[in-house]
Amino acid sequence: MPDAEGSKPVRIGLLGRGTVGAAFAALLAERAAAVEAATGRAPELAGVLTREEGNFAAILDDSDLVVELIGGTEPARDYVLAALRAGKPVVTANKQLLAQHGDELFAVAREAGVQLRFEAAVAGVIPIVRAIQEGFGATEISKVFGIVNGTTNFILTEMAASGAGYDEVLAQAQQLGYAEADPSDDVSGADAAAKMAILARLAFHTPVTLSEVSYEGIEGIQPDDLAYAKELGLSLKLLGAAERRDGGVSVRVFPCFLYRGHPLSPIEGPFNAVMVEAPAITEVTMSGPGAGGLQTASAVLGDVVSILAGDAPVHETRGELPIVADITSSFYLHLEVADEPGVLARIATVLGDHDVSVKSVVQRGAGEDARLVMVIHECLESRFAAALAALGELGELRSPPRSIRVIEEQF
Amino acid sequence: MPDAEGSKPVRIGLLGRGTVGAAFAALLAERAAAVEAATGRAPELAGVLTREEGNFAAILDDSDLVVELIGGTEPARDYVLAALRAGKPVVTANKQLLAQHGDELFAVAREAGVQLRFEAAVAGVIPIVRAIQEGFGATEISKVFGIVNGTTNFILTEMAASGAGYDEVLAQAQQLGYAEADPSDDVSGADAAAKMAILARLAFHTPVTLSEVSYEGIEGIQPDDLAYAKELGLSLKLLGAAERRDGGVSVRVFPCFLYRGHPLSPIEGPFNAVMVEAPAITEVTMSGPGAGGLQTASAVLGDVVSILAGDAPVHETRGELPIVADITSSFYLHLEVADEPGVLARIATVLGDHDVSVKSVVQRGAGEDARLVMVIHECLESRFAAALAALGELGELRSPPRSIRVIEEQF
Repeated sequence: MPDAEGSKPVRIGLLGRGTVGAAFAALLAERAAAVEAATGRAPELAGVLTREEGNFAAILDDSDLVVELIGGTEPARDYVLAALRAGKPVVTANKQLLAQHGDELFAVAREAGVQLRFEAAVAGVIPIVRAIQEGFGATEISKVFGIVNGTTNFILTEMAASGAGYDEVLAQAQQLGYAEADPSDDVSGADAAAKMAILARLAFHTPVTLSEVSYEGIEGIQPDDLAYAKELGLSLKLLGAAERRDGGVSVRVFPCFLYRGHPLSPIEGPFNAVMVEAPAITEVTMSGPGAGGLQTASAVLGDVVSILAGDAPVHETRGELPIVADITSSFYLHLEVADEPGVLARIATVLGDHDVSVKSVVQRGAGEDARLVMVIHECLESRFAAALAALGELGELRSPPRSIRVIEEQF
Repeated sequence: MPDAEGSKPVRIGLLGRGTVGAAFAALLAERAAAVEAATGRAPELAGVLTREEGNFAAILDDSDLVVELIGGTEPARDYVLAALRAGKPVVTANKQLLAQHGDELFAVAREAGVQLRFEAAVAGVIPIVRAIQEGFGATEISKVFGIVNGTTNFILTEMAASGAGYDEVLAQAQQLGYAEADPSDDVSGADAAAKMAILARLAFHTPVTLSEVSYEGIEGIQPDDLAYAKELGLSLKLLGAAERRDGGVSVRVFPCFLYRGHPLSPIEGPFNAVMVEAPAITEVTMSGPGAGGLQTASAVLGDVVSILAGDAPVHETRGELPIVADITSSFYLHLEVADEPGVLARIATVLGDHDVSVKSVVQRGAGEDARLVMVIHECLESRFAAALAALGELGELRSPPRSIRVIEEQF
């Protein structure tokens, strides 16, 4: 597309201005220059259709590309079909639409020879659709599974952490905006089932519709199940699994205990994660925020960029940023010291003289084996290096100081 | 490309037949039908260039696309430049070539208007290049960091687990094939530095060459550092970090302690993982095998598919797989039981009658609060459901049985 039409702006028709739609409109304006740099074409909004304003036919007519963020199946289906039939590529975040009407939509897109992209429909900003369709496009995938609903993962994480009951934690999730006023689509597993139908279709090249996915939700989970599981070293997740089994495919959503070392076990709160298994790739795991207006809008914008770029953009620099050599870090510091009074004071003085501040210190061993293990607060690396050099001069050290950088938890 | 040339086969010139080259040739033959289904064109090898046989000019002339798997900078650089100048797209897994000569290669590719793809050059089969260039192509990335060298991660994992010294574990890694006979490129951090130079360039659209990346390796790590760190709840990784700092970029490789809950902390053994941070996406983490002939070949084949597909392939089904409803699972089973002799025996009998086998059982509480918590060996779900129904009929149960699926560690 960039080659054929040069630097003419690309006009985008936006359907819907809810949370994601509004975030997309703002992000598109903010990142217009970056989109142009990546694709050769500047994007601009041709029009926005909401329940209150805008005329679909007029917006379609004036658009090069349509972004559907209305949600639900009607009238979204009519709009997407009309756009595809008019030869306009479509980006959508609408999982229900794809899970229920995928066959029809993909057939029309193929006939019309235009792209239909939907990265944001599954697992938010995690580029799982792209990975399965393109990176693993010639791979015999055996299994796709993961945590594809952030609301339920938040609820299960909180139940496990606090010991509180399902109803109490659901109310809390609603207050925090992680669950909707009517949470039934999420907590029943139906939302995850729609996403798994889409992933199964892509991974196994077979038609899978929502009605073929069996699902269970988390409404029946009891706090004591979580308590016993904790004793057994298990964590509870709502899993979606699509896999080849017995010459067919099994696509399901169900709560499941995972052993402590399982790659999905550390995924907590509203995050999503998806694993892809295949003999040729072993397993690849991708995790990130599963929802959020800005994150979903960002995934939509990625699809817009892909459509405009056509073939993958050949890398081009956009300027030259200076290389910054001296930055701040925290450090672990290990000193083999003489076991005599005043040593710590002299070491602390050297560090203080260089504005290097100690977060914690423990003494280990005694006599010939005495050593200090310190954690140093974040400071400029050049300053820490100077402090290390000065420490090396001290007669109280039995060997040169050893240091390793540290990333600590932020509170 | 598929539209323009229909079903004509695409001829691939393969440069190099080492571990990855041989795996790629085998994978290409095995997956030829899948490539054709995904792209509309069947791939076939035009020729293979090795040190012993093949003529580069003849192979280039006969190829539509060139795959460079020789490694090193010369003669790989000459070959890749010649292919690009001849208008042939190139796929390479050569991180040194890109890190040292990226500017030249990308400029020539742009001039020639052909794709240069290199997913396999960084983090093996993890689709991080694709994610940064395309999915996050319009995103203001603030930081890319991770574990991009599997050899050093294997060594650090083993040192932490066994308490053994660096030299001993290195020898073990060499025996297992995780480290080369001359491991200096890996253990010094130079290999990771080349990968970070490539990622920094893509993420920040600025020229970064290997010589601008400061790096430290793991040769100086002592077992007691790891022992103290374990006490502090820290794990040690060789990290690559590329980030915006102070109006410029910092690109570095260094050993670093991570707090227990850090997303990179659970990445063990020869695995790689990369995190991307940006305000619009929060953070996305991708992990998977960092090397291996088949895995690297698979990433190369993904790039070939992307080039042949041109625009993203519109999804098309390739058949219709049956939906398999009844599969095998393991279960957690929670029973509130009467606290009287013989209850467990009667429950075990019911389970046994349905061929459902108990892996572990604990009794909790007493009297009105007595309950059995069981883990059930993998069995057909229909059989377990029948056993549950039969258990529900027992007078000894004070409430309906509760069950949740379990994924246990495989040994």
